[in-house]
Amino acid sequence: MTSDAAGGSRPGETTVRVGVLGCGHVGGALVEMLERDAEAIAARTGIRFEVAAVAVRMLSRHVGAGRDELFTEDAQSVATESSTDILVELIGGLEPARTLITGALKAGKAVVTANKELLANHGAELHRVAEEAGRDLLYEAAVAGAIPLLRALSVSLAGENIIRLMGIVNGTTNYILSEMSGARISYAAALAEAASRGYAEADPTSDVEGYDAAAKAAILAGLAFNAEVTASDVFREGIADVSLSDIEFAERLGYVVKLLVIAERHGEGPKESIGVRVHPAMLPVDHPLASVHGPFNAVFVEGEHSGELMFYGQGAGGAPTASAVLGDLIEAARNLGGPRRPAPPPPRAVAIRPIEELLTQYYVAIDVADRPGVLAAVATVFGSHDVSIRSMEQVGLKTEARIIFLTHMASEAAMRATLHDLAGLDAVERVSGFLRVIGPER
Amino acid sequence: MTSDAAGGSRPGETTVRVGVLGCGHVGGALVEMLERDAEAIAARTGIRFEVAAVAVRMLSRHVGAGRDELFTEDAQSVATESSTDILVELIGGLEPARTLITGALKAGKAVVTANKELLANHGAELHRVAEEAGRDLLYEAAVAGAIPLLRALSVSLAGENIIRLMGIVNGTTNYILSEMSGARISYAAALAEAASRGYAEADPTSDVEGYDAAAKAAILAGLAFNAEVTASDVFREGIADVSLSDIEFAERLGYVVKLLVIAERHGEGPKESIGVRVHPAMLPVDHPLASVHGPFNAVFVEGEHSGELMFYGQGAGGAPTASAVLGDLIEAARNLGGPRRPAPPPPRAVAIRPIEELLTQYYVAIDVADRPGVLAAVATVFGSHDVSIRSMEQVGLKTEARIIFLTHMASEAAMRATLHDLAGLDAVERVSGFLRVIGPER
Repeated sequence: MTSDAAGGSRPGETTVRVGVLGCGHVGGALVEMLERDAEAIAARTGIRFEVAAVAVRMLSRHVGAGRDELFTEDAQSVATESSTDILVELIGGLEPARTLITGALKAGKAVVTANKELLANHGAELHRVAEEAGRDLLYEAAVAGAIPLLRALSVSLAGENIIRLMGIVNGTTNYILSEMSGARISYAAALAEAASRGYAEADPTSDVEGYDAAAKAAILAGLAFNAEVTASDVFREGIADVSLSDIEFAERLGYVVKLLVIAERHGEGPKESIGVRVHPAMLPVDHPLASVHGPFNAVFVEGEHSGELMFYGQGAGGAPTASAVLGDLIEAARNLGGPRRPAPPPPRAVAIRPIEELLTQYYVAIDVADRPGVLAAVATVFGSHDVSIRSMEQVGLKTEARIIFLTHMASEAAMRATLHDLAGLDAVERVSGFLRVIGPER
Repeated sequence: MTSDAAGGSRPGETTVRVGVLGCGHVGGALVEMLERDAEAIAARTGIRFEVAAVAVRMLSRHVGAGRDELFTEDAQSVATESSTDILVELIGGLEPARTLITGALKAGKAVVTANKELLANHGAELHRVAEEAGRDLLYEAAVAGAIPLLRALSVSLAGENIIRLMGIVNGTTNYILSEMSGARISYAAALAEAASRGYAEADPTSDVEGYDAAAKAAILAGLAFNAEVTASDVFREGIADVSLSDIEFAERLGYVVKLLVIAERHGEGPKESIGVRVHPAMLPVDHPLASVHGPFNAVFVEGEHSGELMFYGQGAGGAPTASAVLGDLIEAARNLGGPRRPAPPPPRAVAIRPIEELLTQYYVAIDVADRPGVLAAVATVFGSHDVSIRSMEQVGLKTEARIIFLTHMASEAAMRATLHDLAGLDAVERVSGFLRVIGPER
């Protein structure tokens, strides 16, 4: 960091030199923004960012577009070279990102990253390294793209007793579910549509199976509850089993189907536990999250004092994600003179609440042989596990019937035992639909 | 600020002493929260807040409830006394708040305030005092209650090229408009309902005439565009002239009526100007702000890179507002070691765009004598000012008719000339409805 008259900066301005790892979708947008808008950003913030070096995988792809001297294949030297103040890591994945970030922090640089996978698996370790180095580790862009959510949790709501956090943080699955509902098409057709529009990757597993959302859930829960939460602590179910029939039933009952991340705090003191889960769920149509469509993201936060808050915006894309990185760069630049004190306490080790202890309502669709006595047999199974039925509806198929149940609040353990026993009934062909239901009983 | 082992704090904790001016709705909630939750807040943040003194208007109202020693009528001594680190100002109004805040900053304290009126009228001056003193002046609670919006604008989006900001920031008027629509009642009836539920004050002028929203608009525009904007720069119209008939027409046409604050930046360099306005408007029913009901607030921000963002939550109330104050206290406490550098540049003097230059669509309802030739005469007036009509509908009243126009984009100057000439037509009884219309032409 050089102050005032140095290196092309104006009086009152500070020049901050930035190294960037990765120049793909987000990195490219960031470098372009920092170069093209340098003057405007300096006028708005007093900070003149200079891109000092950009590490790329294949140099040959980046030469000849001007500024050839910026690019290098030597990520290690960009991470630790002495002339930069802040390292931006946008290569993703666990390694070499973890080693490079650790090296940069130890070399006295602030680090800004969008690497959700790394944060969700080694967040606590990296926070310790940052704290020991007295340097910022910021990652607004890792969750919900452009939405300034993580800084809200870590500063504005740092003192708030957050009770619950619920959000839509994966644009691919939200697009697929929106398309199934809007165009009345199957999951497979909607997935193909998403792929053709560039909303789903060639291998969509990380999105549709909920791994991407689970990593973000771990990061959000960690910040909201100041706790050590890793991706492996997150209960996870994807959307591949959601059928158009489920969505149509949901809508008839006043719900929409969304892939939600939910983090909740239970109990106090030694009895405290945190439940973190990702799964498709039925959400009342009048809930603020229900109208978050297509590739948009939104996160709903409930605090004891703040009440209900919602943050909404673009969850992905080069420019929106680069915008979040820029916000972190400004924060980090303002802190370069020295870390802010007191630093928040290190994340706490808190018990993770097993999914079996979840209390919620359920939607269950069962395909059965269409003959007398079946309903009684099925209802008996629910009753034997104390799962109370709120509503039931039977729809004729050809030689079969489908029975749709909504339950009252029940434990996941009881629901699982119910599903197990139902599958064992002669008359039951299969459980064709299963969703957790959000919201007050209606 | 005392570190570590001092004053009851634990290792790693910092004790921060807070003076509070005002102990009404928000102040009372804040003091109760800081006292009751001191332990929990310290565990979450590493900061142990101690309320050192609370200045009140009538000491007799606050004695006998325990902690009598906290209260005093001497606001001046609370503002400047040497043992506190941060002053929280919650008395509102211009004076003595302005003098007390200035004194506290000069005495080396950070200041947290919820005083929108003061910020909207003397914000630039107070920012200068804070900058010279090297102390924080934070006011998240002044706009949109619990919603962490101002920090998002001043940190996360500090480098973003914000194009437009549009929000619902007054809960009273939003409640009244929601009630008119939901219960099909008149403005007067909805206002009475709001008063009986405690959503409107005995003198509702500041809310219903848009003064409260205009002060918030000035603060938001100032932060979004880093510009000097005062309440007097804001074009302002209240909701008292919105009729149930306007709302019903709006709904039939696919709109809802909301009191909006809108701030927009036009042009670049010497041609740059900022338009800031508060008025009721027709908003497309599928716009994210359209489903913000009752006392909730929401602000929609459009950035060049970030795209569309929305922030939603409780805009008023003791506990939500106190939650926002707590966020600022944490930020200020973390900065007590020294101000963050570089500080943002001082707000710029930017031209305010006159309302006459606004380009928007309009809804106009005109009550006319129900006789042949009237429509032609009225349409001629629109045409003579180049205001192009998008749709027209005539509704019979008794001996009169009401004609409802939606226009294409037109300038406010042309629209005003049109209204002036319409009022001069023999056949026109009155202009019974007038609203600006948001959104793309449809």
